[in-house]
Amino acid sequence: MDKPVAIAVLGAGNGAHAMAGHLALKGFTVRLYNKFADEIAQLREQGGVTVEGVVEGFGRLELVTAHIAPALDEVQVVMVVVPAFAHRFMAEACAPHLQDGQVVVLNPGRTGGVLEFANVLREKGLAAQVKIAEAQTLIYACRISGPARVMIQGIKKRVPLATLPATDTPAVMEVVRLLYPEFTPAANVLETSLDNIGAVFHPTTVVLNVNRIEAGEVFDFYGGMTPTGTHLLEAIDQERLAVAQAFGVEMESAREWLLSTYEGVHGETLYECIQSNLAYAGIKAPTSLNARYIFEDVPTGLVPIASLGSLAGVPTPLCRAIVNVCCALFDRDFWTEGRTAENLGLSGMSVEEILEFVNTGDGLSPEPSFQAGGRAHEQRQTHIRCSWGRTRWQGHGR
Amino acid sequence: MDKPVAIAVLGAGNGAHAMAGHLALKGFTVRLYNKFADEIAQLREQGGVTVEGVVEGFGRLELVTAHIAPALDEVQVVMVVVPAFAHRFMAEACAPHLQDGQVVVLNPGRTGGVLEFANVLREKGLAAQVKIAEAQTLIYACRISGPARVMIQGIKKRVPLATLPATDTPAVMEVVRLLYPEFTPAANVLETSLDNIGAVFHPTTVVLNVNRIEAGEVFDFYGGMTPTGTHLLEAIDQERLAVAQAFGVEMESAREWLLSTYEGVHGETLYECIQSNLAYAGIKAPTSLNARYIFEDVPTGLVPIASLGSLAGVPTPLCRAIVNVCCALFDRDFWTEGRTAENLGLSGMSVEEILEFVNTGDGLSPEPSFQAGGRAHEQRQTHIRCSWGRTRWQGHGR
Repeated sequence: MDKPVAIAVLGAGNGAHAMAGHLALKGFTVRLYNKFADEIAQLREQGGVTVEGVVEGFGRLELVTAHIAPALDEVQVVMVVVPAFAHRFMAEACAPHLQDGQVVVLNPGRTGGVLEFANVLREKGLAAQVKIAEAQTLIYACRISGPARVMIQGIKKRVPLATLPATDTPAVMEVVRLLYPEFTPAANVLETSLDNIGAVFHPTTVVLNVNRIEAGEVFDFYGGMTPTGTHLLEAIDQERLAVAQAFGVEMESAREWLLSTYEGVHGETLYECIQSNLAYAGIKAPTSLNARYIFEDVPTGLVPIASLGSLAGVPTPLCRAIVNVCCALFDRDFWTEGRTAENLGLSGMSVEEILEFVNTGDGLSPEPSFQAGGRAHEQRQTHIRCSWGRTRWQGHGR
Repeated sequence: MDKPVAIAVLGAGNGAHAMAGHLALKGFTVRLYNKFADEIAQLREQGGVTVEGVVEGFGRLELVTAHIAPALDEVQVVMVVVPAFAHRFMAEACAPHLQDGQVVVLNPGRTGGVLEFANVLREKGLAAQVKIAEAQTLIYACRISGPARVMIQGIKKRVPLATLPATDTPAVMEVVRLLYPEFTPAANVLETSLDNIGAVFHPTTVVLNVNRIEAGEVFDFYGGMTPTGTHLLEAIDQERLAVAQAFGVEMESAREWLLSTYEGVHGETLYECIQSNLAYAGIKAPTSLNARYIFEDVPTGLVPIASLGSLAGVPTPLCRAIVNVCCALFDRDFWTEGRTAENLGLSGMSVEEILEFVNTGDGLSPEPSFQAGGRAHEQRQTHIRCSWGRTRWQGHGR
């Protein structure tokens, strides 16, 4: 495949500013789309974004728009850089305008990002052949530092990425590595999805500090963690690892992840590892309860982890406890609005069927009579077939 | 019944100091038992307790002992004044030494106090005919103010009390009103047990403040509650009310209880009522996580509320969530050590059978063949018969 001539960046937050500016500085043609025009007024006025930090310069943008159609038209890569709770909206917005051969990357997907995005596209009757991938994390550590200006504090050296189905990952890697050589292939989207440390750290720590966050007390988010509170995080992490294991994914624990990711981290317990991590020093807790630590990490983290656990017969009483507490605290039904097996279109599937689905795009039929394949099998599998970037399902569409 | 000549006070905390001293000052013969001799060394040395506050004087004690037998011998009333998690121990200690006609009162029972106490006595094969009651709350607001000295800040005007079975409540009232005219009869022990506001307020508020309590931050327990956090307390309170309703008990909500109990309280929400309660002003949060707010109110509050809810088919996801979180935080299995239907000897009973049991001392048989009564019925019911203060079960004992 030729070098992409154009990239659409969807979003206007810290990550989208950094990615649009940096990719433009790398020489790519970059368009930026955001739903709310007022959030991109400065970018439009200045015609691009000023990047500072580990990258410096002015990244000129070809187009800054609140209209999705021109943003997507004839680009080769669509970089979705929004909170995961906005993935559903982005999929709905993109569905009518995606074009054959385009690659969509969620930066990052959180838990179940591609599964949800693809499910929405299928619901919307997408006809184009596209490939959808999710990154395990956002490649940048960055912060908007002024109007149309972003500070990039760091660029991660390695970001795992997976496509649905996994058989498409090599083809996607060929494209996205032109943008970021840091992308590395993951086994499948279950691996990128369940490698969600934020879901372990964020909502629970907010719950353990609700009163003082709401009272406006300023304190260190990680530095303020205590041995007993961190013990709970460790137990929640064990539930995540058990769910991953049920799906055949061996995953680093949060503690192991800290040890392998950050320099100088040491300790026998998660508490000790967090407190020895200099990268966490001074990071303040949210100053409001209206934070992504709840409204992103519960519906697109703890909810799908618990729901996948249920599907696999792995109990997750603590993930469920924190979700239930958050539902009551914030008067929201995260079990309905979040990513459950039902909402992801996986309802009623077995672990084996889901693995087959994420690895190959096909679902196994639970009935032996269908397992011989053939036309009946083909039709029955439509509802769980991965359709994007493939032609098989055309004619079965809703 | 004549005026009781002797009372045993079991315990050596704030409440036991106040009760022993005050009852002695009222002219009763009072003995005090406590398991740990070092906690009563000063009481023994001084021969009594100095009371200050709304009552003043020196209450001389007939006996201060770490031996249960002489404490109970020939007293008429046994006042158990210990944290509810110690009721099991007290029942085990008392069982061999209780005597016919004695009245035992748990001050207070928390949720399921009498049910547990009676169940332990039955397990231990108690032969004596005793009556066991629970108060809904401790009659005193008090604090140990020095060696063998206690400050009584207030005496509640009305303390509901119930006996198991409820048909024994009038006879018990005759006795205990000689000690405290403030005792008023409650419908049954489900009413006194489910009227547990501490179970609603305490563990959850500790959970919402785990990090700063463990860090040693000083803050107001009630004053530090915030609108969102209190919203969760309100939702937990709704679960408690739903469980009570399933057992035919109409109960004040926590908000209504604040409005009816304290002067000057006002507000549309629980948050507003708590913040307008001058009696809560300045009450500090525990300075350690090793607090009764967890270790009493979880196993003898949230656990039995959730377990009774299960038995009645009332979901209590938030009570369960807080219990599960506390199990993980403190590495304890509160579901095993706490008061569940199983631990209370109620396993497998229906709501109707439990109501029959607490009201009359009999359990209904689920099988129609037993409902005609007779010998088979008598024998089958042994395991759920209220035996104390009655003779029926003798001969069927374990």
